[in-house]
Amino acid sequence: MNTDIAQLVSVALYTPKPAESVAFFHDLLGMEISHREGQSVYLRAYEDFYQYTLKLTEAKQAGLEEVTWRASSPKALETVVMRIEASGLGDRWTDRDYAHGRAYKFCTPDGHRQKVLWDLDYFEAPPELKSKLRNRPSKRPLRGVPVRRIDHVNLMVSDVVKNTDFMLNVLDFKLREQKIGDGGAIVGSWLSVSALVHELALMRDSTGSRGRFHHVAYWYGAQQHLLDIADIFAERDVRTESGPAKHGTTQAYFMYCFEPGGNRVELFGDTGYLIFDPEWKTVVWNVANEVDLEKSSIWFGGQLAKSFYRYGTPVVLGHSLEEIGR
Amino acid sequence: MNTDIAQLVSVALYTPKPAESVAFFHDLLGMEISHREGQSVYLRAYEDFYQYTLKLTEAKQAGLEEVTWRASSPKALETVVMRIEASGLGDRWTDRDYAHGRAYKFCTPDGHRQKVLWDLDYFEAPPELKSKLRNRPSKRPLRGVPVRRIDHVNLMVSDVVKNTDFMLNVLDFKLREQKIGDGGAIVGSWLSVSALVHELALMRDSTGSRGRFHHVAYWYGAQQHLLDIADIFAERDVRTESGPAKHGTTQAYFMYCFEPGGNRVELFGDTGYLIFDPEWKTVVWNVANEVDLEKSSIWFGGQLAKSFYRYGTPVVLGHSLEEIGR
Amino acid sequence: MNTDIAQLVSVALYTPKPAESVAFFHDLLGMEISHREGQSVYLRAYEDFYQYTLKLTEAKQAGLEEVTWRASSPKALETVVMRIEASGLGDRWTDRDYAHGRAYKFCTPDGHRQKVLWDLDYFEAPPELKSKLRNRPSKRPLRGVPVRRIDHVNLMVSDVVKNTDFMLNVLDFKLREQKIGDGGAIVGSWLSVSALVHELALMRDSTGSRGRFHHVAYWYGAQQHLLDIADIFAERDVRTESGPAKHGTTQAYFMYCFEPGGNRVELFGDTGYLIFDPEWKTVVWNVANEVDLEKSSIWFGGQLAKSFYRYGTPVVLGHSLEEIGR
Amino acid sequence: MNTDIAQLVSVALYTPKPAESVAFFHDLLGMEISHREGQSVYLRAYEDFYQYTLKLTEAKQAGLEEVTWRASSPKALETVVMRIEASGLGDRWTDRDYAHGRAYKFCTPDGHRQKVLWDLDYFEAPPELKSKLRNRPSKRPLRGVPVRRIDHVNLMVSDVVKNTDFMLNVLDFKLREQKIGDGGAIVGSWLSVSALVHELALMRDSTGSRGRFHHVAYWYGAQQHLLDIADIFAERDVRTESGPAKHGTTQAYFMYCFEPGGNRVELFGDTGYLIFDPEWKTVVWNVANEVDLEKSSIWFGGQLAKSFYRYGTPVVLGHSLEEIGR
Repeated sequence: MNTDIAQLVSVALYTPKPAESVAFFHDLLGMEISHREGQSVYLRAYEDFYQYTLKLTEAKQAGLEEVTWRASSPKALETVVMRIEASGLGDRWTDRDYAHGRAYKFCTPDGHRQKVLWDLDYFEAPPELKSKLRNRPSKRPLRGVPVRRIDHVNLMVSDVVKNTDFMLNVLDFKLREQKIGDGGAIVGSWLSVSALVHELALMRDSTGSRGRFHHVAYWYGAQQHLLDIADIFAERDVRTESGPAKHGTTQAYFMYCFEPGGNRVELFGDTGYLIFDPEWKTVVWNVANEVDLEKSSIWFGGQLAKSFYRYGTPVVLGHSLEEIGR
Repeated sequence: MNTDIAQLVSVALYTPKPAESVAFFHDLLGMEISHREGQSVYLRAYEDFYQYTLKLTEAKQAGLEEVTWRASSPKALETVVMRIEASGLGDRWTDRDYAHGRAYKFCTPDGHRQKVLWDLDYFEAPPELKSKLRNRPSKRPLRGVPVRRIDHVNLMVSDVVKNTDFMLNVLDFKLREQKIGDGGAIVGSWLSVSALVHELALMRDSTGSRGRFHHVAYWYGAQQHLLDIADIFAERDVRTESGPAKHGTTQAYFMYCFEPGGNRVELFGDTGYLIFDPEWKTVVWNVANEVDLEKSSIWFGGQLAKSFYRYGTPVVLGHSLEEIGR
Repeated sequence: MNTDIAQLVSVALYTPKPAESVAFFHDLLGMEISHREGQSVYLRAYEDFYQYTLKLTEAKQAGLEEVTWRASSPKALETVVMRIEASGLGDRWTDRDYAHGRAYKFCTPDGHRQKVLWDLDYFEAPPELKSKLRNRPSKRPLRGVPVRRIDHVNLMVSDVVKNTDFMLNVLDFKLREQKIGDGGAIVGSWLSVSALVHELALMRDSTGSRGRFHHVAYWYGAQQHLLDIADIFAERDVRTESGPAKHGTTQAYFMYCFEPGGNRVELFGDTGYLIFDPEWKTVVWNVANEVDLEKSSIWFGGQLAKSFYRYGTPVVLGHSLEEIGR
Repeated sequence: MNTDIAQLVSVALYTPKPAESVAFFHDLLGMEISHREGQSVYLRAYEDFYQYTLKLTEAKQAGLEEVTWRASSPKALETVVMRIEASGLGDRWTDRDYAHGRAYKFCTPDGHRQKVLWDLDYFEAPPELKSKLRNRPSKRPLRGVPVRRIDHVNLMVSDVVKNTDFMLNVLDFKLREQKIGDGGAIVGSWLSVSALVHELALMRDSTGSRGRFHHVAYWYGAQQHLLDIADIFAERDVRTESGPAKHGTTQAYFMYCFEPGGNRVELFGDTGYLIFDPEWKTVVWNVANEVDLEKSSIWFGGQLAKSFYRYGTPVVLGHSLEEIGR
């Protein structure tokens, strides 16, 4: 996979309930707090190699602050920034973000804030967190059902084609899977820069809103852990939406839940499949085809709730968390 | 990951018991037979996208016929072949191998035969094998405990440094992990061209032999399937060597067994960890360090048998399968 | 657990599609065919110790032929038969059923045919099925995702109280869990004679029908196997109703599917919990309580389909398999 | 299963490192502390229904204080006590043990202290531990990899036959499996009073000592959890002996470790098999038979360490924990 972007680095979210949000990720998902600064808390999963992969910042409304990507090389960073600037969606260089070096800020066509960088801080475990497993950046925590690493981010868009084209042409992503809806409109894209099927999904926002956040996904690797956390969520009143169940698209064994601030979080229970083929032909699901309609969203397990296509953050009228039926 | 090689395509093995070897992969590991030609049978796992990933050919002795790699692009193929030719280890172009297009044949410094290509045939499922899961190249079989895809190959070498350098410098692999033995000698290298920790491992052959084959690994993804196949092997007299247990290096949950022809096969039960960092620093295990000595080979589970470092194919005096203790 | 009944022996079902039904249990669930006689085929799971646990007989309509129980001792058999005769629901002694010795036939108050016996034939594995695991009655099959043993049977009843009382007072079952519906009516009972939470469930038939069959459950033990068979069902058009998901009642991780003849089959993925307490206090779920309403049927996973309370065999007007939405 | 004993209630152990021992069970195995009294701490797993299942008491040496059994009924208690008294191994009635009612104390022929009772205290969850799952006595903890319930106890004996006969004839256990060693001597017995294959194992002590403790087993139910705790043990220097691997006898997927005080603890990863047959024929493994020798101890996974047959608590000369090779 030769691409200018190498990987998803981190997702920054706003939350109106910062203490509860931090407790959710720390106590239940076993994430470690790397840093606190102002109204922000920085966290990472125990197999995340960098200083943080999740930033939570207090705000009036839930939603996305920013997604950060790492370029494949210092040179690739310059190349991709040139293309962003040419697209008219560039913003500016900065070097003031915690644990991140010189970075270029920009937006998707829908307005989701993004950042691309090369330099960043690795997590250096203090003695009490140091693992004897030399390829593990910190000990497996004893809290909750600990997630292993950040996996991908899903953004709701008002125009799937436009935003997909931007990610393909300007950011150099590869299009792995796509879903075509009634009348031939493209309703979802799954894009990646590595063997993962996606580090980024773009889904049509059924409410017609622009620039909203759908979910960030953390990875378990073992399906049992999804059953474990589902059990804990049932017992502790964590709001869930769908799953554990298996998607046809991406083959992910998943569960969707909401952190206390209202942002949707996906927990990813296995590995789905990996793509090594350098000539990958985009997998197309056409929901006008009845089999695809049935199998693409749910391969097995309960149905996806309708809110899956309508609820995002920030919330819009008539789609708050309280209005979502299970 | 920008590399000239994109992935491992296939492994070709010799077997003195071809019918039994085919039955092992087909009946117990649930692989599909794609083709038969002369004394050769071609097989694939149900998530392998190409026409075959394993070729078994009748021969007097077990061992490796050839490993095939796919380049990242037609241009990368030319580039890597130029470097191979410059190394003096090149052989010739061919276009006569089943399901493989124009390919360049060469050897490792230790003499393991290799091939690199761009063009090759994808598997096209006949109607009875076609899956409704559009990203799955064929239905999940109902036989045995079916492996999902080829994962990696492990070669025994007389000189780890020389062979590692060749794969890094000529083939453009990345060095992910390395093991240093007594006196500082490098005794093992794990190399990859993708997010996998390795598509290729090079291990010192303790018998001092050159060019032998250690194992090919097929991937399950779920740890339960390793327990399932271990149960079936126990019941059906399949010879196993170590595991199910977990390696420290690569973090693989593994089991080693022998197909009836005598070649070692690894079954890989989870995903280990994946590498997305474009600046990855090689993880070094130093077995002079007691903790590393203990944890690198086995993180948990029973110990590795000594035969792990001595038995390879073709067999050499005093190390036949019959002499291996469980 | 001192009870006159020791265990569930077998379930006999009618099927209008006998060849397809046998193929379902044999090819997908990995069951072994023990015997064929007239229009009947007898099967067992690989850890079932007796000659058969499932009898399939060709008939115009799907439904239950008979449930067979084993008494705790020859003396307990006489005791329980005396109570059955006193209840007025007894029928007659017989010794003509395949692989079953002298047995007494009777009915539940709802009319489900039952049988209780002491003598019966154990399965004696022929050499090719003999396991080296001395506590396993036959080798683990290489077909499908093999179920391990029969677990329980669920009967739909027009009157839960009356049928529960019969099983408690006449058959000597213990009441493990109970569900109370709107207005205080008992809508479901889970009864057992061993450490299992239930060998028998009695559920109110929402259609008001009498004597229908809800499901027979076979046990996997590992949750992964439920995901495996769910994957295979999705690919091979086996109709499923709900799950994989987890019940609150009984704590079972389950999936409901329909064999080709139309009878519902439950696949049971873990062990739930076991009861060793000789003074067990019945667990009561009251669906007038909102938490119980939500948690008793589904602890986690997708919701139960409405057909779960209405579809049984034989089918009644308006509730055929074709009318069931997924 | 009609027997005078219904179940294993609890195991009381001595430990020279009480704080570390409590931390092991509480922090790593997720057990809850029910009570502290004098030099003793009482704990339970989250699915244990009674007030405690493990009592840890400070002492100079590790070892067994007492095993407690519950009778099947008040009447069965009187019956079994009469038989114990007749055997000459009875001690006295007491009603002074924490959370246990009137109980009768006695010894095995080898001198292991035991107790049998009918009355005892159930665990009543305080509000913060109360589960919405009405059949779960307390919430699933968020600490470590929490065990679910006590499973069985294993005692080392100088004379297997004599101690087995006592448990069968006086206590009314059933003999489920037995292992015969060289020369026809019985070297191990697995006994139960329920569907479990064993609540009690008796193993020949190869050091010839009398009355020592081999292990207490706690149950997970899911094999993944054994891999999880093995991973945590590897990282946190918990001494392990064998596994995760699968026994042939009892079919248990197991791991043996040592709590900091030196007592061996088994973690039990699945369910093995259950016995419902009221006429069960004891499964006999004869280690003079090579297949049985190989398969009975380890069905799959690494070999059992020799210390398994020699190390018990209290320790005897030459077999301390420090002398055990991994």
